[in-house]
Amino acid sequence: MVDLTEQELGDVYAFAVQLGKDAGNMLMDFARARWGDKGVGEQSFSEKDNAVDIVTKADEDVEAFIKNSIEKRYPSHKFLGEETYAKGGSREYLIGSEPTWCVDPLDGTVNYTHLFPMFCVSIGFILNGKATIGVINAPFMNHFFSACKGKGAWLNETQPLPLMRNPVPPIPARAPGGCILSCEWGKDRRDIPDGNMHRKVESFMNMAAEVGGRDGRGGMVHGVRSLGSATLDLAYVAMGSLDIWWEGGCWEWDVAAGIAILQEAGGLVTTANPPEDHQTADIADVRLGSRLYLAIRFVTASDDTRSFLSELA
Amino acid sequence: MVDLTEQELGDVYAFAVQLGKDAGNMLMDFARARWGDKGVGEQSFSEKDNAVDIVTKADEDVEAFIKNSIEKRYPSHKFLGEETYAKGGSREYLIGSEPTWCVDPLDGTVNYTHLFPMFCVSIGFILNGKATIGVINAPFMNHFFSACKGKGAWLNETQPLPLMRNPVPPIPARAPGGCILSCEWGKDRRDIPDGNMHRKVESFMNMAAEVGGRDGRGGMVHGVRSLGSATLDLAYVAMGSLDIWWEGGCWEWDVAAGIAILQEAGGLVTTANPPEDHQTADIADVRLGSRLYLAIRFVTASDDTRSFLSELA
Repeated sequence: MVDLTEQELGDVYAFAVQLGKDAGNMLMDFARARWGDKGVGEQSFSEKDNAVDIVTKADEDVEAFIKNSIEKRYPSHKFLGEETYAKGGSREYLIGSEPTWCVDPLDGTVNYTHLFPMFCVSIGFILNGKATIGVINAPFMNHFFSACKGKGAWLNETQPLPLMRNPVPPIPARAPGGCILSCEWGKDRRDIPDGNMHRKVESFMNMAAEVGGRDGRGGMVHGVRSLGSATLDLAYVAMGSLDIWWEGGCWEWDVAAGIAILQEAGGLVTTANPPEDHQTADIADVRLGSRLYLAIRFVTASDDTRSFLSELA
Repeated sequence: MVDLTEQELGDVYAFAVQLGKDAGNMLMDFARARWGDKGVGEQSFSEKDNAVDIVTKADEDVEAFIKNSIEKRYPSHKFLGEETYAKGGSREYLIGSEPTWCVDPLDGTVNYTHLFPMFCVSIGFILNGKATIGVINAPFMNHFFSACKGKGAWLNETQPLPLMRNPVPPIPARAPGGCILSCEWGKDRRDIPDGNMHRKVESFMNMAAEVGGRDGRGGMVHGVRSLGSATLDLAYVAMGSLDIWWEGGCWEWDVAAGIAILQEAGGLVTTANPPEDHQTADIADVRLGSRLYLAIRFVTASDDTRSFLSELA
């Protein structure tokens, strides 16, 4: 167990918030340089620069900036970043007992490549194995999410999350009807019956179809959204704007910050592996590293919620 | 034919831009009042107010504001708005020869109900049957799109569209591979083989699946996005951030402003009805009222583009 005083935790939080702002500015500098705003920051590209190379450089530069800043300020903390990790290659469980920063310098890489605004930097701080601080900056939409355990979750540092909190809207009686589901198509698009794409589309259709359709599995959700960023999916669930998100194959850096923000906003995140008996099983605490996640926005806990979660599982 | 001088057209454009700003502010006032910012504008809601009622009031108030402003300033112009139209009930072709304003006070209504930021006001001005001015304001993301024929297309009035224009990235050689496709699940979710949901999912899967999959129809697009707003889909195609959008069942007010912005940004919008022979058929000019649309971001015209469009059709 590592104990931080209230003051120390507050300092780490303030540091993480500033880091998120600076990193978001870097992402926008790279983006603006690509659309021809020459001389923005230090980035400037010619016609010959390849989009993928530029995006890779942005990704790596932002991660290096965050990593170096953390090493300088908190040399005893562990750093876990997407770019750094990808170059290692270990596949073991990543979160240990030391204070750990879990960073995705650029989530929504495909969006960023096309300059579609749904991209962000994601900075999570893990204390004693728990996501404790989260900062997500989506600079092209001016959406800055932040949370620290015990200090609330915030949009743009001023608006408490979830947005609708007086009162928090209940989970619809006919849930998942009335809910917005977010889910992503992902990169594995093999056309094989047991492959990820077919299994995902099967689930999407069950959630989307009219009540009574799909042999009784039709959920008639209010909307199906695919944003192309697992991190922003989670942030918008924390905001209360998306009701349900599930995803398989996420890495720790995709979700660490989002989990901290969602939990501080009262939301629930658990594994998406169905239990043997959903009527009686406990709702498992999220475990970083489980790869398979189900998140629900803040709702007042009730028997309805349990039965709703059981049906989703 | 109605002829406007350059000066007159500029005046209409400036008026439309201001209208879009004011209407966007109204939408945000309603939104903030819902999340408990009491005393924002004139809106304030109690716990008893039903979300759907509030959204309906926002929709109607914004349309009334736009309609009244136009009637006062341009009494000879025709007004076509979603709310006004829904209360009429005529189903005939809506765009005539007189200068016509085509307005959706709130597109992305489901998103707005849940306070998910992908909502906007959409104001189109049709001159001699052509979408000539478009203003789309997505206030929760600070994205303001505007265009007037001959005066360019703009993000936030300062950034010319498409974003990447020096040079405009070519359509990928392996298109639709490498493209981002946006498409919406829609409201018709009947679980019948010939229904809209099954036909849409069939197309989504063809575009998403690995090359060679789906009996050779697999397109392996770079990403599939569903935002929940046809109007913003079009705006982001104009921005160059989404490559392809198609939709059935759109009304004139969903697309009029977006078409004006997309076309001024060099993009292409046509009917999504496949021609008899796609190798030789002309690419039809978009006709407001066709209900079925296919849009492509600005690309340099070439034989590749034609062959790509043929395969999409």
